[in-house]
Amino acid sequence: MDLKPLLDKNDSKILLVVLDGLGGLPVREDGKTELELANIPNLDALAYQSATGMHIPVDIGITPGSGPGHLGLFGYDPTKFEIGRGILEALGLDMEVTDRDIAIRGNFATVKYEGDTPIIVDRRAGRIPTEENRRIVEKITKEIKEIDGVKVFIKSGREHRVAIVLRFPEALPSGSDQINDTDPQATGVPPLKAEGKNPAAQKVAQIINKLIEKIAEIIKDEPKANYLLLRGVAQRPNIEPFGEKFGLKAAAIAVYPMYKGLAKLVGMEEVNPEGETIADEIEALKKAWNDYDFFFLHVKKTDSYGEDGNVEGKIKVLEEFDKELPKILELKPDVLIITGDHSTPCLMKGHSWHPVPLLIHSKYVLGRISQAFTERECLKGELGIIPAHKIMQLALANALRLKKFGA
Amino acid sequence: MDLKPLLDKNDSKILLVVLDGLGGLPVREDGKTELELANIPNLDALAYQSATGMHIPVDIGITPGSGPGHLGLFGYDPTKFEIGRGILEALGLDMEVTDRDIAIRGNFATVKYEGDTPIIVDRRAGRIPTEENRRIVEKITKEIKEIDGVKVFIKSGREHRVAIVLRFPEALPSGSDQINDTDPQATGVPPLKAEGKNPAAQKVAQIINKLIEKIAEIIKDEPKANYLLLRGVAQRPNIEPFGEKFGLKAAAIAVYPMYKGLAKLVGMEEVNPEGETIADEIEALKKAWNDYDFFFLHVKKTDSYGEDGNVEGKIKVLEEFDKELPKILELKPDVLIITGDHSTPCLMKGHSWHPVPLLIHSKYVLGRISQAFTERECLKGELGIIPAHKIMQLALANALRLKKFGA
Repeated sequence: MDLKPLLDKNDSKILLVVLDGLGGLPVREDGKTELELANIPNLDALAYQSATGMHIPVDIGITPGSGPGHLGLFGYDPTKFEIGRGILEALGLDMEVTDRDIAIRGNFATVKYEGDTPIIVDRRAGRIPTEENRRIVEKITKEIKEIDGVKVFIKSGREHRVAIVLRFPEALPSGSDQINDTDPQATGVPPLKAEGKNPAAQKVAQIINKLIEKIAEIIKDEPKANYLLLRGVAQRPNIEPFGEKFGLKAAAIAVYPMYKGLAKLVGMEEVNPEGETIADEIEALKKAWNDYDFFFLHVKKTDSYGEDGNVEGKIKVLEEFDKELPKILELKPDVLIITGDHSTPCLMKGHSWHPVPLLIHSKYVLGRISQAFTERECLKGELGIIPAHKIMQLALANALRLKKFGA
Repeated sequence: MDLKPLLDKNDSKILLVVLDGLGGLPVREDGKTELELANIPNLDALAYQSATGMHIPVDIGITPGSGPGHLGLFGYDPTKFEIGRGILEALGLDMEVTDRDIAIRGNFATVKYEGDTPIIVDRRAGRIPTEENRRIVEKITKEIKEIDGVKVFIKSGREHRVAIVLRFPEALPSGSDQINDTDPQATGVPPLKAEGKNPAAQKVAQIINKLIEKIAEIIKDEPKANYLLLRGVAQRPNIEPFGEKFGLKAAAIAVYPMYKGLAKLVGMEEVNPEGETIADEIEALKKAWNDYDFFFLHVKKTDSYGEDGNVEGKIKVLEEFDKELPKILELKPDVLIITGDHSTPCLMKGHSWHPVPLLIHSKYVLGRISQAFTERECLKGELGIIPAHKIMQLALANALRLKKFGA
């Protein structure tokens, strides 16, 4: 529902801690999960004093990527807003993405020429080393700064991957990214031309085709990476800024660029920790505490170890966070939410569809239900199993930032 | 979903008991809630034999007013039907509101005149005593019975407040209440003119402006209440009558006018108890038992004490109801629902967003799950946490009044 007419202001502080990929599945014969094996007394005690439950990131049975996972936690229904692959790639490489931008994923590829026609030989240019990628991107960016008034930014990813941001002079109408991939996902054929499905997209496609031609000219003598294929042409989704939607001045504290990027995409401000540990992030939180109403603090490594199937590693990150938790509690947030953006069970070595443990601590909870911060204990809780994008409604309610609905 | 094609008739009786503001939060150091502290053996025993759960009145995190709270229990999605402030005010003063009516809240105010222009000095006329309000309203109603064929009804509320109902010759098209408040919510400025946002509303606004002028003329010599400001212009929402929607002949038993009014708004018939106690209400229920299929019985004081933060008071009302419960059970309702329209935790001294304990007793329940009628025990129950407006579907199902859906 539309919260706008209900929004109220006060001095409360809301903190959303996202332990990326938090939820797990049995990893031992006795059926215990990562959370059940971890020694996390502070989280367990907090769960007992909090409202607990589970959230479903996108929909029952649906495994979310990081984009939808975070959009949901930020209060946006992730089935209604799509964050294109190009955008995520650019955010992941710490590139700015504005409403004037088109973001694209690129792969360096190897082509041979038949006459003037390039024919794809290797779609990944033999997975060239990242260093070689960097050298080639530098060569390109020296020569291409803009095309027909559109600024061009290119950044190296790993191996053969790059991200491109095209910045137009003005905000782009929605639908400007309705453009096919130029990568035909096959070898022995020529790359495709970019074609727009509507007039606005056609203008963008024209720039893309010119860019590809220019790049091909610059790198034509490279032994492997002598061509660039593009995929995931995307513009920023038309999202109501978080600050306006919820009446909160919001800060994002994260180490990995993609998560800072996702937060900035909805209009949060970036607050950068000095180092990369959880302690560093909490230190940054402390320093920014007086300047914002809402804080998103992202812990990445629970997910990374989950992806690797590294049970000990995931447990250690949970225990590391648990040791730091008292420092967070010292700040006395009016509302403290601890959850994940999705589950990443070590058993599955990847994101999964499973509901994610959720804890909301405030003065206005029932509590005394969950004996620990685990999947099985949170399932008993007073919040039930709720869609992720409703958590922000509970955050505002517990912060007394929502007026009564109707008389 | 649309139940119409599934409705079936039989002789079953459904009783919905609403303990207003039922749900609570911890009120003592040991975390116990009002319901956990109350000595309610009959309710506890009934919960054990019933289907239990929690309901969410409007949406997760949303605190409902009494209007949306009851609409939900009556089976209407409260986010889809709005009951305007004027309507609630009129219902609360026991005024009839039909589909030909516009209802408005008014405040007597003090103005001074600059030439012919009234300038607001006090928006509440110094909160004149209710007695003075009554005298002035009598003076007005003696002189104004109708304006251009529109009947005018005015009734005194507390202090400076009144409710007005304008009864037009014919049913009003929807949107007729799209009219601004004439109260500018400021002093030192003139009141606003009523202006309609569409042709139907413009006709209504014209009557309102004439009414204000006439009233101003009548009370211009009053020392304090020499003007009337209007707010919350509203018409009855276009709601399918309860009887048709659910195939039930329904009676409402309540002591406070607003709740009778809400029930009448959806087409229930009023059955008036002879006194104001719960026992009186149950006596009225008994007398009407053979004449209806569905009964809504409203207990107000749980909410009143909740609003006061009076734990002992709230507990006493719960215990009073518990003592009377056997009389209800003697009637052997086929389906007995006991719940609240929202939570009113003494801790918060007001309505809250928290889910509300819910009990449905019929022959067709699992039961033997909740050991008591409390928030924490109902959370374990077979109904889960459901939206309030789905409860009527369960009522009909348990009454065997719904046919199979599909073959």
